[in-house]
Amino acid sequence: MATNVMQNQDPAVLSDRLGRLADLAADRGVDATLLTPGADTRYLLGAGGDSFERLSCLVVPSDRSAAPTFVVPKLEQPAYEAVPAQAIGLEFLTWVDGQDPYTMVADLLRRGGRTAQVAVADTMPMRHALPLRERHQAPQVLASTVTRELRMRKDAAEIQALREVGAAIDRVHARVPEFLKAGRTEAEVGADINAAMLEEGHTEAAFIIVGSGPNGASPHHSVSERVIRDGDVVVIDIGGPSALGYNSDCTRTYAVGDPGRDVLDTYAWLQAAQNAAVRAVRPGVTAESIDRAARTPLAAAGLGEFFIHRTGHGIGIDVHEEPWIVEGSDTVLEPGMAFSVEPGIYQTGKWGARIEDIVVVTDEGVESLNNQPHSLTVLPA
Amino acid sequence: MATNVMQNQDPAVLSDRLGRLADLAADRGVDATLLTPGADTRYLLGAGGDSFERLSCLVVPSDRSAAPTFVVPKLEQPAYEAVPAQAIGLEFLTWVDGQDPYTMVADLLRRGGRTAQVAVADTMPMRHALPLRERHQAPQVLASTVTRELRMRKDAAEIQALREVGAAIDRVHARVPEFLKAGRTEAEVGADINAAMLEEGHTEAAFIIVGSGPNGASPHHSVSERVIRDGDVVVIDIGGPSALGYNSDCTRTYAVGDPGRDVLDTYAWLQAAQNAAVRAVRPGVTAESIDRAARTPLAAAGLGEFFIHRTGHGIGIDVHEEPWIVEGSDTVLEPGMAFSVEPGIYQTGKWGARIEDIVVVTDEGVESLNNQPHSLTVLPA
Repeated sequence: MATNVMQNQDPAVLSDRLGRLADLAADRGVDATLLTPGADTRYLLGAGGDSFERLSCLVVPSDRSAAPTFVVPKLEQPAYEAVPAQAIGLEFLTWVDGQDPYTMVADLLRRGGRTAQVAVADTMPMRHALPLRERHQAPQVLASTVTRELRMRKDAAEIQALREVGAAIDRVHARVPEFLKAGRTEAEVGADINAAMLEEGHTEAAFIIVGSGPNGASPHHSVSERVIRDGDVVVIDIGGPSALGYNSDCTRTYAVGDPGRDVLDTYAWLQAAQNAAVRAVRPGVTAESIDRAARTPLAAAGLGEFFIHRTGHGIGIDVHEEPWIVEGSDTVLEPGMAFSVEPGIYQTGKWGARIEDIVVVTDEGVESLNNQPHSLTVLPA
Repeated sequence: MATNVMQNQDPAVLSDRLGRLADLAADRGVDATLLTPGADTRYLLGAGGDSFERLSCLVVPSDRSAAPTFVVPKLEQPAYEAVPAQAIGLEFLTWVDGQDPYTMVADLLRRGGRTAQVAVADTMPMRHALPLRERHQAPQVLASTVTRELRMRKDAAEIQALREVGAAIDRVHARVPEFLKAGRTEAEVGADINAAMLEEGHTEAAFIIVGSGPNGASPHHSVSERVIRDGDVVVIDIGGPSALGYNSDCTRTYAVGDPGRDVLDTYAWLQAAQNAAVRAVRPGVTAESIDRAARTPLAAAGLGEFFIHRTGHGIGIDVHEEPWIVEGSDTVLEPGMAFSVEPGIYQTGKWGARIEDIVVVTDEGVESLNNQPHSLTVLPA
């Protein structure tokens, strides 16, 4: 169960984010931004997770003279008591079973005057977006067009949170040799990793991939009952949030027993490509240039067809967020952007490998938040 | 992390559900139903959980002569290999980074001829619903108008799954006296409950509420660092899925030490009201009549103002689904409907209590799937 409240939220920071969101929305011709609980409300208020079927909705008018309002079921309001509402100028508007919260939101929007265009959270389910639109009667656009500008650019406290949770997942990878042995199943290894993640400071494991043997060639395999055996190459991709609300995400590849010459030779190319892509990171280059920095050498080594996904994804309050490190992305990297660099090689039916670090763009170059050895870790069978 | 694959899915059952969905949609003037991974795809295909930001979408044309198609990122397809695609007439259409899956869905719809109205999953995020609409250019309605007719009516296998997971959560409640003691925090008790839930056959704890003392008066409190003390009344509301994919949800109220006369007297009314509401369940009555069966006597006892939420919610593959047991719902109960009966009394700042069973409507009356004692369990401090 995700922690819905983020620790250590400075009201001045939240207040500033709410204000900048309003300004960015106004610049784009959006009259109000509607956000159901999730990563964006955690970013702006310090709280908000799942909310079952009753509507909870943060309404941020683009007109800064109108207060942001959080429309919330009365019985959910206690979950938000850590939000420094008064300090950030937030008003609460509660409702009880029998009232119509969609009309309440529409009324708030009408108070602000014109409602020509409304931005809605990308994660807002249709169950809420549709009745909201029926009531507020304006075209809806995705809020990420606005929120991405804020969330992509991490401040010092956010980078520190990513740094700490990155160090925590490194400590878990350092312990993998205790868990990963032939004769155990992927699920058993995954359970040990889960416990280790909690011990090392995560509030939960957001995902655990233990891809052994042919399962390593399936990038989004999770864990199965497959028994690990001598000679297996094992992809371990794990991550999750700390109490500060920022996520780790780190992949290392291991071998149980001798993986054989082909694997070692292929892996050497992957290691060089991942390293090159990390070294290529600096302010002023495009996101797609980082993808190319990994992909081009692998293609030249004849391995292009096995590298079947983008090089990386941004990370923060979400595991996957902007910027996307993919061909076609002309986003220019700036200091404070945080993302994964995770090329992989997938030989269907045989084996796979991936190496992933989370990196932050610095003023001059790059800081890697994951620093466990990048070589293929060969463990005794 | 939710189990995305449901065990023991009979292809004939899945095939029948897909066909009946198409017919129900056609009856409502809907030309196709689009479902992103979640409870509805687990119901129809036996698989589907979270899917990050890449589009996975089941397209079910209302015209039964057109095959249903699952549009899925190539790297996610292995997660669906347990789906008996051939047996149920399902086609896969995979895509890789760089292709436009929204256009692929629109093309599928156009192949079917007219697209006047499209039903979309209630849980489909705007991030997908909006670009889908831009491509398929037809008004969208919520799929639950169609899917509720299927999912509300559980077959024998579904009822058996609910029965088994209901018995499992009963076994966890039976163990609460091992964990619940003064001097421990709610979070510590919650951690023990979490472990017990996994031991007793759940694949995860979907939610754990340990509301002690004043926290019991906040119905959706989860767990906190509050230290439980002598005299506390503690609401424990817990549940989650088994590997068969159906959820438990059961609340019992405990006292640590002597809770005092007022609590015992008030609790007696709550126990009588919950019992009366369960006894009122039978085919042919309305959902709102069950809410009234609990609410009317509590109001007559002067406790109406403390019962601040609906009496219950349906349950199945989702923890909360139709039918809603709430004033205003004229849904007529039929055999096979499964829902909670969970009135509560909440005295803000002091204490709260709730009693919850999951019940199934039978041919003649009702079967309760939770059978731990309903009295206030008083434990030694």
